[in-house]
Amino acid sequence: MEERVIKVAMMGLGTVGTGVYKVLKNQQEDMVPKLGARVELKKILVRNLEKAAAKVDDPSILTNSFEEIANDPEIDIVIEVMGGKQPAMNYILACLDAGKNVVTANKDLVASEGKKLLAAAKRNGKDFLYEASVAGGIPIIRPIKQCLAGNHITEIIGIFNGTTNFILTKMTQEGMEFDEALRLAQDLGYAEADPTSDVEGLDAGRKVAILASAAFNSRVTFEDVYTEGIAKITATDIRYAKEMGCDIKLLGVAKDTPEGIEVRVHPMLIDSSHPLASVNDSYNAVFVTGDAVQDTMFYGRGEGELPTASAIVGDVYDIVRNILWDCCGRIGCTCYRDRPIKRVGEISSRYFVRMQIENRYGTLASVASVFGNNQVSIAQMVQKRVNGTVAEIVVITDQVKERHFMDAMKILGGMSIIKEISSVIRVYG
Amino acid sequence: MEERVIKVAMMGLGTVGTGVYKVLKNQQEDMVPKLGARVELKKILVRNLEKAAAKVDDPSILTNSFEEIANDPEIDIVIEVMGGKQPAMNYILACLDAGKNVVTANKDLVASEGKKLLAAAKRNGKDFLYEASVAGGIPIIRPIKQCLAGNHITEIIGIFNGTTNFILTKMTQEGMEFDEALRLAQDLGYAEADPTSDVEGLDAGRKVAILASAAFNSRVTFEDVYTEGIAKITATDIRYAKEMGCDIKLLGVAKDTPEGIEVRVHPMLIDSSHPLASVNDSYNAVFVTGDAVQDTMFYGRGEGELPTASAIVGDVYDIVRNILWDCCGRIGCTCYRDRPIKRVGEISSRYFVRMQIENRYGTLASVASVFGNNQVSIAQMVQKRVNGTVAEIVVITDQVKERHFMDAMKILGGMSIIKEISSVIRVYG
Repeated sequence: MEERVIKVAMMGLGTVGTGVYKVLKNQQEDMVPKLGARVELKKILVRNLEKAAAKVDDPSILTNSFEEIANDPEIDIVIEVMGGKQPAMNYILACLDAGKNVVTANKDLVASEGKKLLAAAKRNGKDFLYEASVAGGIPIIRPIKQCLAGNHITEIIGIFNGTTNFILTKMTQEGMEFDEALRLAQDLGYAEADPTSDVEGLDAGRKVAILASAAFNSRVTFEDVYTEGIAKITATDIRYAKEMGCDIKLLGVAKDTPEGIEVRVHPMLIDSSHPLASVNDSYNAVFVTGDAVQDTMFYGRGEGELPTASAIVGDVYDIVRNILWDCCGRIGCTCYRDRPIKRVGEISSRYFVRMQIENRYGTLASVASVFGNNQVSIAQMVQKRVNGTVAEIVVITDQVKERHFMDAMKILGGMSIIKEISSVIRVYG
Repeated sequence: MEERVIKVAMMGLGTVGTGVYKVLKNQQEDMVPKLGARVELKKILVRNLEKAAAKVDDPSILTNSFEEIANDPEIDIVIEVMGGKQPAMNYILACLDAGKNVVTANKDLVASEGKKLLAAAKRNGKDFLYEASVAGGIPIIRPIKQCLAGNHITEIIGIFNGTTNFILTKMTQEGMEFDEALRLAQDLGYAEADPTSDVEGLDAGRKVAILASAAFNSRVTFEDVYTEGIAKITATDIRYAKEMGCDIKLLGVAKDTPEGIEVRVHPMLIDSSHPLASVNDSYNAVFVTGDAVQDTMFYGRGEGELPTASAIVGDVYDIVRNILWDCCGRIGCTCYRDRPIKRVGEISSRYFVRMQIENRYGTLASVASVFGNNQVSIAQMVQKRVNGTVAEIVVITDQVKERHFMDAMKILGGMSIIKEISSVIRVYG
């Protein structure tokens, strides 16, 4: 029997591209018996041909001309691992319009332009797959779109960024402050020189937007996601959290509520017995709740050369099967609902507040009455004397609407007995 | 546009069947926009029509004649949730031969007859899907066959049985002995009146066989799996394990090694920092290691009406898509390798041994020399005096071939200074 060959091009040969190149090479013997076809990497688009030559066995597959890929009728699948919004966006659209299937790891693009990209795929009857855009190697998009398709998914909560999880783990386990842990992450190559996207929750926000769209069948874009970073978290906060039975994690939260979809990324206290609380170092994990499956969690490496390549090659294989069975486009956009996005002020949460107050008779009662007057009820409180005149108090509230809580904080912030509001962190559950 | 209807039959209306019925009902509004077709449950095969009538809205869909399903050309998909080997096996084969796709949760059948069933599906160009047969609602078969298809999976280790995990959790957290924890599990409905299949590791063994086949692309049957249960585990063992930084779990282990495939289920000590160690109560979890994805874990409800139904409906939806795209049979048997099964004596492991020895000068040296003479090296040891004449010692060994270890145990068992070999438990890692 003649061996069927499916030809693939890749755009980009950075960390993830190199991983894909390696995984496809490792898979040479298994592809044909596994899929019924051989996947051949025919072209790789790179900026610098000379620099890229060292990374591949046969430099003749390298090109710096996008047209060579777009206009090659033999190429059925294009893997986009260039990153960034442009020219990636235009290239992907051109590939789809040229009748090619596309696999991408580009979360920036999918989180903002997913609708347009999936529409282009549908228009051309092709696949546009992006398993690698969320949580690296962890299978999560396909499980949500297929395995859990019989569920109404009500909540997704997860650790979507390895850099910040590494930093918070070091702060928790070794008592480091944020700056020190960030420097360590940079020294070890976990954090970039400009760590803004990780530390401020932007990277996680993109992943939450993509997953929320898949889970709730309603389009959520990165622009819908409320984000807050971890730079303000201190080792002191983490110590108090531990005393109260919690860990602090940077969590992405997406909920489908009767009033609309909540999507946000911010640091949160989470009960230490929750499975997410023990997800440490640079690992990611996604906790999914559905009406049938109940609780389920997916855990693994959220980034890195080979884990991300694992997700990309899984998508490529799926498309190969679709090509062989002539069913490309089998699963496209699943956003058939149109749910509103809930404004962050309308979201309810519990809060952890750490304050320095004047250490004298009556101040605690004043603080408590401000909370009470603003519909904020107190669940737990710890007070410690810091020095003769100032006491540190830590409060965990019950569920309260964000805007009521913020009203209370504004009043407290203006009171002379309050020396400092040191930390305000949300609490899960 | 005319609404396309895909007609489905179900065989069985026990716990899982009732769950499937409920989930399909909950999904009425979402099916058409999600899939492009409506799934209609046309017939349910039951033994007792009268008893079953109370469980459905319209008793006219009930039948006690298998032929009514097999001979109905309108029925495209049959869900088998009767359980047991026969008549389920014959019914499934007849359905496939009648040109119907089949979804099953029947682990007994898939673990022993998977090859024959997948061959029948292939012969007829139909789908035979069994996501629900392993770990209930947790997506695991599809992630392995598709998302992780670009990996050489080297190891699967997991908690595959909720009943035994509940029992061990109670023994660990509340110091209960096995009998007491089993009775509690029975009272709460987690364990059956005859708990053999759960407690002896047979249930877990079936799931490990199914997953090993999918992960290593080589057929593994239940008959290949070495199984040992948890009835011999004591609260004392668990306390010593904790002292040594470990928890005791009933683990299913499957490894693809150069000498063949290892597949076994037995209690094991596992480092308390391993993600599986904190999987408690009746939860299941599967830890998968591959050359690209590295470590990944899937966690959730391993059984129960709705979680298992979640997996079944996911499979049904996948088949509906395949029917609409005319690509049934798209992913069938993926066992294209033929690897030998490693004999249990050839497997290497670390061991935890608890013994009562004579409390006098020289006995410890004698014990140590028996280990040494049999190539067993000692990694950790704890000795406690039990009473004046007997001391309790606990040893954790380094990696050793099972047969060398057993030789050492045989010699120790025959020595007069050894009063009792109380426990022998394997240690992971």
